[in-house]
Amino acid sequence: MSEPNSGLNMSSRIRWTPYADKVEEAGGCGFSVVNHTLLPKGFGAPVEGEYWHLCEHARVWDVSCQRQVEISGPDAEQLVQWMTPRDVSNAKIGQCFYVPLADERARMLNDPVLLKLANDRFWLSIADSDVLLWAKGLALGARMDVHVHEPDVSPLAVQGPKAEDVVATLFGDAIRKIKFFRFGYVEFQGTTQLIARSGFSKQGGFEIYLNLSALGPALWDSVMEAGQAFIIRAGCPNLIERIEGGLLSFGNEMNSDNNPLECGMADYCDLDAGGAFIGQDAIEEIRIAGHQREIRGVTFGGAPCPQCVVPWPVHAAADDQPWIGQVTSGIYSPKLNANIGLSMIERGYWEPGQAVFVETSDGQVREGQISSLPFA
Amino acid sequence: MSEPNSGLNMSSRIRWTPYADKVEEAGGCGFSVVNHTLLPKGFGAPVEGEYWHLCEHARVWDVSCQRQVEISGPDAEQLVQWMTPRDVSNAKIGQCFYVPLADERARMLNDPVLLKLANDRFWLSIADSDVLLWAKGLALGARMDVHVHEPDVSPLAVQGPKAEDVVATLFGDAIRKIKFFRFGYVEFQGTTQLIARSGFSKQGGFEIYLNLSALGPALWDSVMEAGQAFIIRAGCPNLIERIEGGLLSFGNEMNSDNNPLECGMADYCDLDAGGAFIGQDAIEEIRIAGHQREIRGVTFGGAPCPQCVVPWPVHAAADDQPWIGQVTSGIYSPKLNANIGLSMIERGYWEPGQAVFVETSDGQVREGQISSLPFA
Repeated sequence: MSEPNSGLNMSSRIRWTPYADKVEEAGGCGFSVVNHTLLPKGFGAPVEGEYWHLCEHARVWDVSCQRQVEISGPDAEQLVQWMTPRDVSNAKIGQCFYVPLADERARMLNDPVLLKLANDRFWLSIADSDVLLWAKGLALGARMDVHVHEPDVSPLAVQGPKAEDVVATLFGDAIRKIKFFRFGYVEFQGTTQLIARSGFSKQGGFEIYLNLSALGPALWDSVMEAGQAFIIRAGCPNLIERIEGGLLSFGNEMNSDNNPLECGMADYCDLDAGGAFIGQDAIEEIRIAGHQREIRGVTFGGAPCPQCVVPWPVHAAADDQPWIGQVTSGIYSPKLNANIGLSMIERGYWEPGQAVFVETSDGQVREGQISSLPFA
Repeated sequence: MSEPNSGLNMSSRIRWTPYADKVEEAGGCGFSVVNHTLLPKGFGAPVEGEYWHLCEHARVWDVSCQRQVEISGPDAEQLVQWMTPRDVSNAKIGQCFYVPLADERARMLNDPVLLKLANDRFWLSIADSDVLLWAKGLALGARMDVHVHEPDVSPLAVQGPKAEDVVATLFGDAIRKIKFFRFGYVEFQGTTQLIARSGFSKQGGFEIYLNLSALGPALWDSVMEAGQAFIIRAGCPNLIERIEGGLLSFGNEMNSDNNPLECGMADYCDLDAGGAFIGQDAIEEIRIAGHQREIRGVTFGGAPCPQCVVPWPVHAAADDQPWIGQVTSGIYSPKLNANIGLSMIERGYWEPGQAVFVETSDGQVREGQISSLPFA
């Protein structure tokens, strides 16, 4: 099984983003597709260079593919609560909530960030599956009094230790008061824009939920200009930094084969709270029986590993043995001077320190050990 | 707005297919992503060469991305009928039905092919949106007694005038009796496989709905071996042939901004049949008021046009005028010796023969005219 270093054939079906022209100007040349939308993933430079820069300065990322599913109306909170095991009754307006979504058999469907815009208006900022159709189907089937739609919102992330300085230069010092996983509003060219202290890195930063596509290029330019003094560069979610930080990616680390407990989301399964949610009985059953695998880190040796395109088997011994898990994302970490991966590991083998062997796609069998997350 | 001739950055999230290794061996080097799954779209050769070969011989296509949403159980037919404006009450077991799916406001969500496997068991062979979540949401919300899931089924298409000979060589002459948009079953390596006379071309052919991923490479090899005498080649849905044939692609020619009448699907909206379906009132309202745009062909001049990545404006006059439509897919047709496109055109301008101007992404404004579909 090799890794296609191949062309992405574009069509109108794959949605262009408000920033994509700017991304191309900045050298963007590697892409993925998330939520039917282009996600820049490479700028022609080694991922390690981007990594160090992200850890020291600031990067701007086109994450328009984080689409918003807006749920509003009298039954909005009821629908949101029904969709997630996490108790959202104490979410405050202006707060972001990480919320696993599961089906009636506790199978993961997505792991969005919930933004509470008002008591009767929410956004689910989604990973790669059509939560829009899930929410609409539930609402229509159960005749709930809600409006569910995808608004014209295209998040732009500014990440890195200097991200706050960049954003404060552009929008003023008030944004410095926004706490982690909270959001506020700023003015931009006569419009009001939502800005959250959040993002898909552990380096800190903000996400601007631009609500008018036409302003995309202007916002990009303004961020780059404000960031000049802080050595800002165009970038994208960084695989080294993401794995080190133990940030999970739906579709990679987990999918509908997994339940929230396997994904390490027990803290987001409020089984004893008042709200009834889809999959409650199934999760309760799994909790009682004990889940059989869970996401862990794994460190492993040898030369820097190839890209993990298809999950790599993990064994408890070097000779041919049954799988005791699989690595779903892997990369060489320069900070840890080791290969590191995110993996789903069977019960009995998931304790940190457990010796394992990782079979990478280059045919090598590499010695390693289980670790807790995050790594760094 | 340019066309990214760029890399597809792979990850485990984008599902590898049972045939993908074989596709790579055969020179596959351009891909798209449909239903979170790799779709081969290029083999390094000009699309025109593949076009002529498809029209004269046979091609094998990895269309694993056409995922199946299986709906089974006592309420299966009721759910399927609720999901589509088309009357499915007279569908026979062994029959394929093209069924638009729309929401309660008549917005298109997908345009799958329905396969009736049994009176209480159906597949929806879907285009690019998570119909699985839509069907599951509806069923759960309305407490219907159905089971909805995605089975391990990866269609392999054999298309072209010699496709029947290829498939008959492999599976026996009985398959020659399968009529268009009907399906039967064949034996392959001790398994029973569904085979339909269908496919995303107008050249005729079959789709083998392989229900065991592990047999993918063997099936590919068997088809290639059986096809040797018929000059079979690895390929992919061909853009020239698709546009000439007027075959629509969900996400390209239409999306949730469009209703079924705009998509030319009036014949699939059985408003007077007995079944109640989602969006019935909305479609009835649109029918009475008259829909305001509809899909048409457009032919236009100038040098062979670039690839259409973002819809191209269509005007009624060469000087700066409001849009009267947009081209969503376009290409040069060697058979017609003209550029041809699929387009959504406003009422008042959609009569065949209407003079138009197409603004292609290379900055040219090209004279053309509206045409009916299919072209060829």
